[in-house]
Amino acid sequence: MTLRVTHTKPSQLRVALFGAGRMGEIHSATLTRHAGAHLVGIVDAHRPSAERLAGEHGVRVLEEDSVFDDNDIDAVIIASAADSHPHLILRSATAGKAIFCEKPLARDLEAVLSVAKVVEATKVPFLLAFNRRFDPDFSALARRLHGGEVGAVELAIITSRDPAPPPIDYVMKSGGLFRETTIHDIDVARWLTGEDPVSVHATASALTTVGMRDAQLPDTAVLTLKMPSGAIVSINNSWRAAYGYDQRVEVLGQDGMLKLANRRQDGVTRMGTSGTLNSNPEPFFLERYAAAYIVELDHFVTAVREGQTISPGVADGVKALRIAYAAEESARTGQTVTLG
Amino acid sequence: MTLRVTHTKPSQLRVALFGAGRMGEIHSATLTRHAGAHLVGIVDAHRPSAERLAGEHGVRVLEEDSVFDDNDIDAVIIASAADSHPHLILRSATAGKAIFCEKPLARDLEAVLSVAKVVEATKVPFLLAFNRRFDPDFSALARRLHGGEVGAVELAIITSRDPAPPPIDYVMKSGGLFRETTIHDIDVARWLTGEDPVSVHATASALTTVGMRDAQLPDTAVLTLKMPSGAIVSINNSWRAAYGYDQRVEVLGQDGMLKLANRRQDGVTRMGTSGTLNSNPEPFFLERYAAAYIVELDHFVTAVREGQTISPGVADGVKALRIAYAAEESARTGQTVTLG
Amino acid sequence: MTLRVTHTKPSQLRVALFGAGRMGEIHSATLTRHAGAHLVGIVDAHRPSAERLAGEHGVRVLEEDSVFDDNDIDAVIIASAADSHPHLILRSATAGKAIFCEKPLARDLEAVLSVAKVVEATKVPFLLAFNRRFDPDFSALARRLHGGEVGAVELAIITSRDPAPPPIDYVMKSGGLFRETTIHDIDVARWLTGEDPVSVHATASALTTVGMRDAQLPDTAVLTLKMPSGAIVSINNSWRAAYGYDQRVEVLGQDGMLKLANRRQDGVTRMGTSGTLNSNPEPFFLERYAAAYIVELDHFVTAVREGQTISPGVADGVKALRIAYAAEESARTGQTVTLG
Amino acid sequence: MTLRVTHTKPSQLRVALFGAGRMGEIHSATLTRHAGAHLVGIVDAHRPSAERLAGEHGVRVLEEDSVFDDNDIDAVIIASAADSHPHLILRSATAGKAIFCEKPLARDLEAVLSVAKVVEATKVPFLLAFNRRFDPDFSALARRLHGGEVGAVELAIITSRDPAPPPIDYVMKSGGLFRETTIHDIDVARWLTGEDPVSVHATASALTTVGMRDAQLPDTAVLTLKMPSGAIVSINNSWRAAYGYDQRVEVLGQDGMLKLANRRQDGVTRMGTSGTLNSNPEPFFLERYAAAYIVELDHFVTAVREGQTISPGVADGVKALRIAYAAEESARTGQTVTLG
Repeated sequence: MTLRVTHTKPSQLRVALFGAGRMGEIHSATLTRHAGAHLVGIVDAHRPSAERLAGEHGVRVLEEDSVFDDNDIDAVIIASAADSHPHLILRSATAGKAIFCEKPLARDLEAVLSVAKVVEATKVPFLLAFNRRFDPDFSALARRLHGGEVGAVELAIITSRDPAPPPIDYVMKSGGLFRETTIHDIDVARWLTGEDPVSVHATASALTTVGMRDAQLPDTAVLTLKMPSGAIVSINNSWRAAYGYDQRVEVLGQDGMLKLANRRQDGVTRMGTSGTLNSNPEPFFLERYAAAYIVELDHFVTAVREGQTISPGVADGVKALRIAYAAEESARTGQTVTLG
Repeated sequence: MTLRVTHTKPSQLRVALFGAGRMGEIHSATLTRHAGAHLVGIVDAHRPSAERLAGEHGVRVLEEDSVFDDNDIDAVIIASAADSHPHLILRSATAGKAIFCEKPLARDLEAVLSVAKVVEATKVPFLLAFNRRFDPDFSALARRLHGGEVGAVELAIITSRDPAPPPIDYVMKSGGLFRETTIHDIDVARWLTGEDPVSVHATASALTTVGMRDAQLPDTAVLTLKMPSGAIVSINNSWRAAYGYDQRVEVLGQDGMLKLANRRQDGVTRMGTSGTLNSNPEPFFLERYAAAYIVELDHFVTAVREGQTISPGVADGVKALRIAYAAEESARTGQTVTLG
Repeated sequence: MTLRVTHTKPSQLRVALFGAGRMGEIHSATLTRHAGAHLVGIVDAHRPSAERLAGEHGVRVLEEDSVFDDNDIDAVIIASAADSHPHLILRSATAGKAIFCEKPLARDLEAVLSVAKVVEATKVPFLLAFNRRFDPDFSALARRLHGGEVGAVELAIITSRDPAPPPIDYVMKSGGLFRETTIHDIDVARWLTGEDPVSVHATASALTTVGMRDAQLPDTAVLTLKMPSGAIVSINNSWRAAYGYDQRVEVLGQDGMLKLANRRQDGVTRMGTSGTLNSNPEPFFLERYAAAYIVELDHFVTAVREGQTISPGVADGVKALRIAYAAEESARTGQTVTLG
Repeated sequence: MTLRVTHTKPSQLRVALFGAGRMGEIHSATLTRHAGAHLVGIVDAHRPSAERLAGEHGVRVLEEDSVFDDNDIDAVIIASAADSHPHLILRSATAGKAIFCEKPLARDLEAVLSVAKVVEATKVPFLLAFNRRFDPDFSALARRLHGGEVGAVELAIITSRDPAPPPIDYVMKSGGLFRETTIHDIDVARWLTGEDPVSVHATASALTTVGMRDAQLPDTAVLTLKMPSGAIVSINNSWRAAYGYDQRVEVLGQDGMLKLANRRQDGVTRMGTSGTLNSNPEPFFLERYAAAYIVELDHFVTAVREGQTISPGVADGVKALRIAYAAEESARTGQTVTLG
């Protein structure tokens, strides 16, 4: 679901940032270069981190409470630890701030639903930061697909693989492969086909490390989503691709196929006695989606300032998470799960 | 299963051909150029077809019975209509002829099992013509995979799409998508992983033509095979790829990925104002697997003459068909089917 | 120049082969599979070679003289040592045989001119075997270029590199890089542009081996051909490309570019920690032009039987050689050589 | 030649910009984001342009004279009209400012030589902005080549084509194809091979527009540079490539080849009945070298601040221009020009 913004158009969007980690660094750097926005200050539970990043941009370190009380702050970016998300979303929404939120909305479905309810009730502008939607290549694919270049969708293959698995304790906390990684691909499936699946089936294995195998934490999975139109979406995930971050999509329609390839790290090729060697795809998401993060924040800032529709919104997060939970159930039981 | 040939080594293998259709044409042309084999004659229920092809190669038209009675015939190629396969296999095996047989072994599983029983009992050399196994590109992939280039297999994606669906009545007779097309990909999955799946799940849709949709005949499908090692194989099929015959494989292992791309029809590229245009993949199997048909028949002739192991054999056909049947059941019920 | 064949149409072309070496093997194998031709026998100064190849195809070993006296021989393939070419062409032409001739016509320009004079006087069908003209990829490029897909030609780049230099004594005898290798690219330039150059400039170096450097035999060269239309053709040659046989062409026209890429040895790609590795281009001309040799001989057989125009002919050989000589002069003097 | 910077290390480099045009926009935007530099103000003969760009960055509009008198300005970027370059370089050098200068140094060789003399005498840090040297792909190619990946260079092909020719009057003023475009490729040839050519040969045509043809202004050219080692560099240029900006390099060494491909505009491929369509290369230099401009300015700022060597310098500009003039002479006379 997307929201119609009702705020008056501010001259420059004044933004507070929660979280001075990796995504906080990216978003603060993007924000300070954006003509339409102004970074007011940074909040981080770990104060030295907040101080370091605030110092870099010449802005204030803020206390959490002061953000919600401050009428000169129009919007927040939530890029803090996942645990803090529901709490910060609720307070921001209640305080009437526009919200740019990294996933997840919350750790479990119940919390997500209650967060979503509040966001929708307050009608604050809300962007859920599914980065693929803002990547120039994914956008070009979606625009051409939706423009009818290959007719009705019949079959889509989404490949999404990480270079290496996260630490076990992170996996435990994040909810695992389906909620951490596959949820992006589920969102891509919904976005590209314009449909919500009627059923999902998942098969998963624990293969990459001794830790994963011992704990039986899935790190390799294949999902099949069946859409109301009959279109089938196949998602394959792995947390170990020795060659880098593998992000590909292909959509077969009645008139042909649209495909999205990985981008090579550089354009150099070496041909020698042992073969023709090209560089690998980008190493991971920070490099692969560097352009997407800029477009994403620009979409948020522009849409809030001009009262335009924001997408994806909180409802997209809820829907993708429901499907991820269904996939977990399917992987556990071996059975196809029907979606309401 | 593969068979150890016990025949004495003939100086030149004397072969009779059943079937003067498309595959009969290919195999007879290959045979007449093979130094180790000799085409004795051709049998076809439609006599003018047999006469035309026999005339082309300067060989005799034969009656079916005469083949089995003739001690100067060492081997048969069964490339006739599918209906005739079980009967011809049984008679050839009983007569002690080496058998090169196009798929299917028979139309239904019961017939297949009884055919297999006889072939195994007679111990005649038997090649089931799964063409992918003899394609130079597939062979290179298999050799390198089995040589350990990317370590243990974790995830494989097999893409296999036809340019256009066959006529409805052919589909009805052939048993449909899974037994006609997917069975090749199932064999590839078994061959590449070296494992038999513990379970299979399939999702299918009828999308390509009004006739397919009305008859609810699957023309688009996704299968998930789970292997004992935990490796997952995902197969995607369609009977309509506007751009030609799409035959790709990728295998992700612990140390990287081996991929098999389509071959373009030609090496010409045009760059103009509207983009960079390359030729499409080969139009269909006759062009794509032209080299495979030569290697395949050479493998048969050489193995029979020299008493070497032949593979794939009748047991491979039985196993692939069992999995295809299980996939049909899964597509019908929506449930994962466990394999014995 | 091309010749209009006036022979009556024979039912099957009866052909004698001169030369039982590598090209003789290829042409005899192709010929025995051609429905419209019949290999009568083989001549080779080294009789055991002739016997071996004749035995393989079940044909006779012939004496040179007997070929010209035999009215049952319609055509000859000259694939013997280069030294024997002028003599065999002259005798064949005088005897009224259709001639398929491997390059060169002769070792030096004077001999070439006198050979050409006789061939043209006798009006025998004559094919000079410039293999690129019959390669399916080169043909597709030429057809599309001549069909106007990129408009008038402005600039062409022809890349032609061998995997390794020939032995020094072969180089000495063959006339060197320009007459041995570049002459093919000069013919391609003439064929694709449809123009004869008004001038040529060449720069050459001796780099690949100690022997080449000591003898100052060019093994690396760049030629610039200026055409009457103003189009410029740049040819680059090397006798050492560690990665295989490199045969590429690109033609820039007013509306875009047509390019011809190398074909990879296989379609397998490995992606690992050290990069994305593809197979190299074909190793050398036998593999790269395997299809061309079949088309080439079919063109000859069909054209002779049906009285069609044959191209390229003796005049094309003369023209290409004149340009190669001019390039040698330019490489020696450093100056552009104007062509008549 | 490169210069050793002797300036004290300033805390932040204070820079004045000459020229508020396209390159001025790029450099000012890059500069304002650079932590080590500070844009003081902008000079442009056309005051409204200066005002617009200064306003955008919140900096002052400066008068030319005030820049040289101001001790708080450490460095200048010269991105103004080419006519103004010699004058601005001379005044900046005399005033002891570090200089970042877009090409050309001056319109004619005499002026270039006198400018170079002053720059070298004053020893001010000087960067000549040959953008290819800072492009990540070109840099990777150079680093790997110089690291010995393919051994000694034997043959290099540099392809450099613009999408469309500049206006005739611009061509007249800029000195034409060789001094405007080819000079970049000449610099690349010197940089990659690490050698200065002993001779150059050029062939040129006027083909792209009626205006170019009527004025006989070369828009299509091929150059051959011979290096002292015997390595040959072939440069091909055109001012009309319908498919975009074509910037490729390949270097053949004794052990193989390093190649630099164009980057596609996006990673989307469409496969349909008419073929497989990819996006074209980037449209022109602003898009293609966007990353290079950032690296280039960073190199300048960092090198000046830290007293490091700057390259390419004024001597590189002089050398490239001498070769461009020799190429013009060769194109006019048809003869190879020997370089001192």
